Amino acid sequence: MIVGNGAAELIKAIMEDAEGIIGILSPSFDEYRNRVSGNRISLFTVQSDDFSYTADQIISHFQNRPISTLLLINPDNPSGNYIEQHDVLKLASWAQERGILFLVDESFSDFALTKEPSSLLEQSTLERYTNLVVIKSISKSFGVPGARLGLLATTNKTILSDVSKNVSIWNINSFGEFYMQIWGKYRATYEHALVMLKYERDRLATALKQIDYLTVFPSQANYIMCEVKAPKKAYDLAVDLLDAHNILIKDLSSKRGISPRQCIRIAVRNKEDNDALINALRSLV
Amino acid sequence: MIVGNGAAELIKAIMEDAEGIIGILSPSFDEYRNRVSGNRISLFTVQSDDFSYTADQIISHFQNRPISTLLLINPDNPSGNYIEQHDVLKLASWAQERGILFLVDESFSDFALTKEPSSLLEQSTLERYTNLVVIKSISKSFGVPGARLGLLATTNKTILSDVSKNVSIWNINSFGEFYMQIWGKYRATYEHALVMLKYERDRLATALKQIDYLTVFPSQANYIMCEVKAPKKAYDLAVDLLDAHNILIKDLSSKRGISPRQCIRIAVRNKEDNDALINALRSLV
Repeated sequence: MIVGNGAAELIKAIMEDAEGIIGILSPSFDEYRNRVSGNRISLFTVQSDDFSYTADQIISHFQNRPISTLLLINPDNPSGNYIEQHDVLKLASWAQERGILFLVDESFSDFALTKEPSSLLEQSTLERYTNLVVIKSISKSFGVPGARLGLLATTNKTILSDVSKNVSIWNINSFGEFYMQIWGKYRATYEHALVMLKYERDRLATALKQIDYLTVFPSQANYIMCEVKAPKKAYDLAVDLLDAHNILIKDLSSKRGISPRQCIRIAVRNKEDNDALINALRSLV
Repeated sequence: MIVGNGAAELIKAIMEDAEGIIGILSPSFDEYRNRVSGNRISLFTVQSDDFSYTADQIISHFQNRPISTLLLINPDNPSGNYIEQHDVLKLASWAQERGILFLVDESFSDFALTKEPSSLLEQSTLERYTNLVVIKSISKSFGVPGARLGLLATTNKTILSDVSKNVSIWNINSFGEFYMQIWGKYRATYEHALVMLKYERDRLATALKQIDYLTVFPSQANYIMCEVKAPKKAYDLAVDLLDAHNILIKDLSSKRGISPRQCIRIAVRNKEDNDALINALRSLV
């Protein structure tokens, strides 16, 4: 395992060493593909109305398109789409048989409400799939982006050694280091916060569905993606919310894989903030 | 200017882009040369008794040895050797005429006691020497290594752009960012601390010269390098100080450019700590 100055440092480090063609989904978190030249990317553009996709669809798409690395963000960003563990492992097996490096970003997996474990960070899993590399942004789970903490885990020694060389010496700051030393004391509080977040996400999604100019997509992350119905535009909605209500949402209308569709991403926050958002959205009818 | 997650991130980033043969002094801070393969290094091994060297000696050494980049740590680490600004600029001109990139690490320059300015971080200087790149570890000057802060300054746009690409996105942590926002409030305190440090360095050096098993070398940094006279060994001295006095000094006997000579590096601290060190060294006669 390698600890990074945020997941960003590890993403940069592993993409520098990933060879050949990289299979990437779109829309998704773009920092991975930003680190690779365009001609080395094989894109699977998600076509479904709600931007959802399955493991079988990924396999089917890349079956006859040669790739050396497959990247999965799970839950995905910004869609919130989630693939259950048994299907992620199906992808891992499929990739392993073909000698494909399987890169799974679990930065939002703590937020997934599922019966199966949401993380592959288990020694037995990592040992079974030697082509598997798991990256996780700790900042995202704990809501402390400024602490700059991320991790990369694999039993593939070549990758571990290559990524280590690509990471700066003394990369972790003292605050991050201390934070990780004491976080265990707050584990129960964190687990409780996760339960509350999942409950609030459900409540927020239900309320959003009653806003008639929005289509709400299912999400297992700590955000919800919605499509803004015509004639409303995502950009205008974001500006109006900021101007009139001091609320910042993410306008996705220029994002690759989403444009020209009009989508926004809304953060799941506490009851008070979520209610304020809902009231603001209602007032903008 | 680019801000780094410590100078280490910037050192890694610029060394990845430095092409051709790199002229490096030895002994010196090794992180730069660790980032380049050995066959790309042209070494100037300092031969003087006290590990001092001058700008003229550097020019004379590299005059007939083709290099693409010249690296200078000023003050140097671990020797504390310092080159005055007019001579550093002489090196900059010499390098500029030959199309050599001149990399100056000023991490310890705040500690130099000199009539000329100790830093090249001036717009006019950077504009005049377009082959000049200045790197500075902020952590070292302020004594906050855990904050992970460093900077790189140059007017060379190609280098700025290349280094930016080699640095992770979101590389600075929030604590470091906040620290830099408020440090101005403490500027006077910092300036006072620098004066005290220079005074203490002088007092400590004078006291060290009275330890008869040590040879003390001149230093303009916040440390002093000494040679340990036979039959005493640097490693044994470091172990004895730690065992008997709980004081940690740096044993340099295995360091490249110093080995097999027996040298140690001592940090300049406050009066109380320095006195404790002197008393401990006296007791080990």
